[in-house]
Amino acid sequence: MASLLTNTPDTLVADVVIKSEEVLKEGDAWEEAAQRLRKAGISSAPVVDEDGFLVAILNPTDLLMEMEIEATDDISRFSGSGGGETYFGTPLMKLVLRRCGWLVSLLMLQSLSSVILTHFQSVIERHIVIALFLTMLTGTAGNAGNQSSAMVIRGLATGEINSANKMRCLWREAKAALIAAVILSAASFARVWMTPGSTWLASVAVSVAMGATVVGAVLFGTATPLLLDRFGVDPVNFASPALATLTDVSGVLILCTVASMLLSGHP
Amino acid sequence: MASLLTNTPDTLVADVVIKSEEVLKEGDAWEEAAQRLRKAGISSAPVVDEDGFLVAILNPTDLLMEMEIEATDDISRFSGSGGGETYFGTPLMKLVLRRCGWLVSLLMLQSLSSVILTHFQSVIERHIVIALFLTMLTGTAGNAGNQSSAMVIRGLATGEINSANKMRCLWREAKAALIAAVILSAASFARVWMTPGSTWLASVAVSVAMGATVVGAVLFGTATPLLLDRFGVDPVNFASPALATLTDVSGVLILCTVASMLLSGHP
Repeated sequence: MASLLTNTPDTLVADVVIKSEEVLKEGDAWEEAAQRLRKAGISSAPVVDEDGFLVAILNPTDLLMEMEIEATDDISRFSGSGGGETYFGTPLMKLVLRRCGWLVSLLMLQSLSSVILTHFQSVIERHIVIALFLTMLTGTAGNAGNQSSAMVIRGLATGEINSANKMRCLWREAKAALIAAVILSAASFARVWMTPGSTWLASVAVSVAMGATVVGAVLFGTATPLLLDRFGVDPVNFASPALATLTDVSGVLILCTVASMLLSGHP
Repeated sequence: MASLLTNTPDTLVADVVIKSEEVLKEGDAWEEAAQRLRKAGISSAPVVDEDGFLVAILNPTDLLMEMEIEATDDISRFSGSGGGETYFGTPLMKLVLRRCGWLVSLLMLQSLSSVILTHFQSVIERHIVIALFLTMLTGTAGNAGNQSSAMVIRGLATGEINSANKMRCLWREAKAALIAAVILSAASFARVWMTPGSTWLASVAVSVAMGATVVGAVLFGTATPLLLDRFGVDPVNFASPALATLTDVSGVLILCTVASMLLSGHP
């Protein structure tokens, strides 16, 4: 198009036409086709049928529209609300039931934390400070893990993270996890310590559990999208609520275990 | 481009050139320019300087690349890990400190729940079942709220939700919230009821608190992106961890209030 506008009206088409470097087949997937064109540095290409006959020219406007739908789809999938359909076009009950199916499953998984807490009930009753900081622990670790998985999903989508540098990415996130764990452990030690009625040991327990849960959440949040990508599954299907739920349950388990080890002999 | 490929080589350029319907200015923002071109159904346009002189032709490939970066940026921002920079190109400490600044602020906000729990300590000690289902309540409501805000952010990005149908969207999410609240209340009543040591009243307390927190989270998760958009802020800046944190604190407050109202007279 650029060459069209910068040539005089009597230039022949044959002089400005560029041979298409990419030929798409009718059955090609949109996302993959868009990625091939982007890599080749072009935005339109002929589409041929099974016998190699030209059936259409891929329109760059269609491609843009399709990419925008794919991209906003990703946010919906990341949040676990499905995607691919229009908002007002989907019947309300269908929309609610699809979302609730997912929410109820996660609720049941999340309720595992009550089983763990019941098991450690005597420690908690003697050290109520543990129950007071449960949601702070699980919420913070969930946020940290989600940040990592969002960065990895983004890196895989742009191609910055690929099979050649996957291990470098995992190693980088492991280092990030350790630094974040130190900072967040210190912040939670200070926060618990400031609470009337808390002990030094209880502050240490919450602080150690925070560090361990953050490291676990970041590593899990990094490794899962990388693994999904390895097995050909779009990593954006790794939804954020799934990570948050697993972090909740493992956070409760880690805090109860650490607390019972540190505090069981203390009044 | 389509017309180029379907014409014979001796067609004159003047016969296939289409007058450009959109002219971009040098200072135009990428996102806004892309949206204008998409609405006009074209994917390239001349770019002019302040005096109206042609300085460049917008390349559709650049546009595609830029849109992909914008789109993956959105996932990063939605998760609260910033965006706009490359993953490996950002120094590790800068990456970690930016993420941790946000995490520590949310940790402090989240620790408000310990203040609320301390205030209601006597009810919790008598009815430990409340502490057992805290993370299930806050996690589920957070997931429900995030689903709604992701749907609204997506709808605003594709233009399906706009100033003309904002109230219809809010009303639709309000209805969805009520249905989801009934389903999730029933599921949590059943789950608490199944727990050894729980009472009928404690199950009702968790179930009522779940319904109220879900409705609050969905309405807040819907209204905030709509309000941000109204005031010209990109709604994707409404990060998911912020909603999760607010849901955690309000969920704890609602559960404690409901439980102390229903259970305070009971042993």
